Amino acid sequence: MPSSEFTLGANSYGKSGIRLVRVGRESPRHELRDLTVHTALSGDLDATHYTGDNAGVLPTDTQKNTVYALARDGIGTVEAFAERLARHFVDRVPSIGAARVRVEEHAWDRIGEHSFARGDGGERRTTEVVYDGRAATTTSGVRDLLLLNTTDSAFSGFLVDEYTTLPETDDRILATAVTATWDYGTAKPDFDRAFAAARGALMEAFADTYSLSLQQTLYAVGERILKAIPEVAEVRLSMPNRHHYLFDLGRFGLDNPGAVFQAGDLPYGLIEGTVRREAA
Amino acid sequence: MPSSEFTLGANSYGKSGIRLVRVGRESPRHELRDLTVHTALSGDLDATHYTGDNAGVLPTDTQKNTVYALARDGIGTVEAFAERLARHFVDRVPSIGAARVRVEEHAWDRIGEHSFARGDGGERRTTEVVYDGRAATTTSGVRDLLLLNTTDSAFSGFLVDEYTTLPETDDRILATAVTATWDYGTAKPDFDRAFAAARGALMEAFADTYSLSLQQTLYAVGERILKAIPEVAEVRLSMPNRHHYLFDLGRFGLDNPGAVFQAGDLPYGLIEGTVRREAA
Amino acid sequence: MPSSEFTLGANSYGKSGIRLVRVGRESPRHELRDLTVHTALSGDLDATHYTGDNAGVLPTDTQKNTVYALARDGIGTVEAFAERLARHFVDRVPSIGAARVRVEEHAWDRIGEHSFARGDGGERRTTEVVYDGRAATTTSGVRDLLLLNTTDSAFSGFLVDEYTTLPETDDRILATAVTATWDYGTAKPDFDRAFAAARGALMEAFADTYSLSLQQTLYAVGERILKAIPEVAEVRLSMPNRHHYLFDLGRFGLDNPGAVFQAGDLPYGLIEGTVRREAA
Amino acid sequence: MPSSEFTLGANSYGKSGIRLVRVGRESPRHELRDLTVHTALSGDLDATHYTGDNAGVLPTDTQKNTVYALARDGIGTVEAFAERLARHFVDRVPSIGAARVRVEEHAWDRIGEHSFARGDGGERRTTEVVYDGRAATTTSGVRDLLLLNTTDSAFSGFLVDEYTTLPETDDRILATAVTATWDYGTAKPDFDRAFAAARGALMEAFADTYSLSLQQTLYAVGERILKAIPEVAEVRLSMPNRHHYLFDLGRFGLDNPGAVFQAGDLPYGLIEGTVRREAA
Repeated sequence: MPSSEFTLGANSYGKSGIRLVRVGRESPRHELRDLTVHTALSGDLDATHYTGDNAGVLPTDTQKNTVYALARDGIGTVEAFAERLARHFVDRVPSIGAARVRVEEHAWDRIGEHSFARGDGGERRTTEVVYDGRAATTTSGVRDLLLLNTTDSAFSGFLVDEYTTLPETDDRILATAVTATWDYGTAKPDFDRAFAAARGALMEAFADTYSLSLQQTLYAVGERILKAIPEVAEVRLSMPNRHHYLFDLGRFGLDNPGAVFQAGDLPYGLIEGTVRREAA
Repeated sequence: MPSSEFTLGANSYGKSGIRLVRVGRESPRHELRDLTVHTALSGDLDATHYTGDNAGVLPTDTQKNTVYALARDGIGTVEAFAERLARHFVDRVPSIGAARVRVEEHAWDRIGEHSFARGDGGERRTTEVVYDGRAATTTSGVRDLLLLNTTDSAFSGFLVDEYTTLPETDDRILATAVTATWDYGTAKPDFDRAFAAARGALMEAFADTYSLSLQQTLYAVGERILKAIPEVAEVRLSMPNRHHYLFDLGRFGLDNPGAVFQAGDLPYGLIEGTVRREAA
Repeated sequence: MPSSEFTLGANSYGKSGIRLVRVGRESPRHELRDLTVHTALSGDLDATHYTGDNAGVLPTDTQKNTVYALARDGIGTVEAFAERLARHFVDRVPSIGAARVRVEEHAWDRIGEHSFARGDGGERRTTEVVYDGRAATTTSGVRDLLLLNTTDSAFSGFLVDEYTTLPETDDRILATAVTATWDYGTAKPDFDRAFAAARGALMEAFADTYSLSLQQTLYAVGERILKAIPEVAEVRLSMPNRHHYLFDLGRFGLDNPGAVFQAGDLPYGLIEGTVRREAA
Repeated sequence: MPSSEFTLGANSYGKSGIRLVRVGRESPRHELRDLTVHTALSGDLDATHYTGDNAGVLPTDTQKNTVYALARDGIGTVEAFAERLARHFVDRVPSIGAARVRVEEHAWDRIGEHSFARGDGGERRTTEVVYDGRAATTTSGVRDLLLLNTTDSAFSGFLVDEYTTLPETDDRILATAVTATWDYGTAKPDFDRAFAAARGALMEAFADTYSLSLQQTLYAVGERILKAIPEVAEVRLSMPNRHHYLFDLGRFGLDNPGAVFQAGDLPYGLIEGTVRREAA
């Protein structure tokens, strides 16, 4: 109950990890979509927090049901599906003022008319749509796209202090799991084409760039994504440095000409940055 | 390289997942501290992004070394240790303007003078200190504290629409994994005492509250934490609803008087909210 | 379909990961049991493999239902519950000749009359009962019991070859996540008392032993468990060596008197062995 | 120490999770191999267990070093690499009587001359070689190959008892994560060709088979693998049933013609079986 001392601040509630698979049977060559959906609603929800009066609460179970029901007639792009869901909750439920719907899509490779294969986990295409009753804004991207260059990566000339022991290197493995997000705002480009262009640009930039630092690679990747999707003004990138340590074979009387590496786990470097369409 | 078209926005870099264990051997009754540390630095880092000039880059490997070196003479509270690290990076490294240091502490139970036991994973005490060269602000909390009530939880009177199938219930299991954070700002209370008080208040509020909704429990927990630590103005809580479904034994001619439950995994409800020290 | 060329060999099927929570409401002080159950049935199952004739197949969904139904009136020890389930499947279903039922129990700490807290994941008490229509044999144990000694562990005098670089040490951290199993055969001791005795003996042996190798600790733990539960003839132990590396502070002009360690992740040593009640 | 009461039984020790990446730089088109290696040695190891005398113990750290050193001049097939390692330990170290070396290979897709991409986790090619000083036997396979059919799967005519509630279905999604192993014994076929043939046969059999039960699919897959690799006498298959539940849209006045599914997590069916080259 509200008191003279305390008050409710920002809040939201929803259903996370809704696992939705949809089969398109329009032809004998079935289509397969595999999504994980997360909903988060906010609005006039003081009563349930203060007194447990749930009259304005659309249960998270209902939110889940809605995701499956609205997939009945097809999904379309993940961006369009997320917006349809967000609009549904805000436009139909008086107590809900805003909805945030996130969707991750897991890709499958076709191996037959109705048969598919894929690796466990891994890369996902992502989107997040926020709708407040007036405008729907869209942010899309990719999560955990694993990339590795076996050469054309150096790291030297860095700041040295009393705790620095890292040797300089002019040839190392550079590996990362890219998470990128970019904002479409209220624009509605061809989302599938834009995603394919952005992902292709990302991979090309990673492969093409002679890297003097992972930061430089990050900036190059961001620039190339912006060039690929003109609708977008800003790209945010998170690139963990999945360290590969050149194994010291000298202790055994062997050289190691960039051949044998120990893949590290923890700790890992984490490089995060934003690239914007705007003169410096 | 900066161009007439693109520019670097917000960015940071650091080392994540630094696993530090420290043994205190001041007496035969050894002390054990087990931390995971994450650093994130920002500042004048345009050059490495634009041209790969790393002269201002303190390597993430050096950041890791620093964490171990500064633990040499003891850790103290996680809050004090995080601040010491943050100040070190900003005060010593000219190119670094701000540091964000996060620490998670894993608790062990003593089983002997120098012997300890604990469960894998699980609850962690957390802190995050941000220092920008002028002020150090501290946010502390707890992650993944698993709590379960077998009764005194109901959920009814909620909004019903065409997709609602959830039955009302006046007695259910309520289970969650609480993540809470609260801001100390620049205050320096007795952090260990404050944490113990907050954690105790959290657990008592969860156990005491007759819950009409998880939102109501969240608010009650937030209020109780604010009462326990007067230095704090705001608590943020994230409480996933770890659903336990009453198993339908009626199909087998059996009743189920709140006895047998199926613990769910995905999807799960996610309730997030803020409680503030301020009249409504 | 069987052919002149190929034939079906050993096989089984069942339901894994059945998450069962049971609340005992006999008094206001509720009891909580939290189990994960796995069933595996075998028998006369050629037809479903060769031709898809499922007349002898009790669906894994039914096996799951059975687990919940048989929990209706209480669980008792995990050993007794596993045996009840195994006997049910073999004695009631003509096509099933043998059942293997595994149960893992997750412990909760009481924090109120009907309130509980626990860490996520971590240690589980385990059992596996195999019943073939004549005899039920029981194997019990513990999984992932994390233990750590800050001293009284050395490792030296080992075999050195051309690839050896490990320095000898007379004082290191010894940490492991013990998985142990022991066989009761067809005996029916007081399973709860036996488990508590075995677990206590395990922890005491770990804490008491001055360890010259993890193998020596393993053997000492096994011996102590056998002393604690006279019904048991053999203990099998799996003890990963969770390496803690003394961090080299000498590079910074600091000593490190057994104080600061880097907890390793991959790779890890894995020591496995059996201790038997029998003169050497 | 051995006593008149207790004795050491079967035991082994080794290093698990050795992460090895090797770059082949013979041409500008670099080759990339990414392996996780596990070693387990056994032999005359009583002394370290009984008294902590480590004279016969080759440290697990040395085993790790050996894996990297022996990768210096190339890896070849995972089977050949595992055998080289196993023979090294047994043939060079007098106290070691037998070695078991497991290797998992993670595949990467080429996206440039020295650039690669892959999903996180997922399918691995596996092998295990056991060498006892006389013969080396090889078992190979695949782990966690995710496959899904959108149709041509039914499950009906099964045994019904008092706890059966599963409806019969003549059209369902069939999804699984195949783990398969097959024995080459002491034969040395072209391992890469054999693996490719087996994996291709596995996927074809999964896609081709009209499935009346997952057991029938398992048997068909096993038969097809045996046809593809004549050197092999037995295939063992583990196929979790990754349930996809047709979502009940009828509650909302909608039909669901095999379109919308909820992907389940826990519990899951687990079907395991062996197919042998031998007349029934």
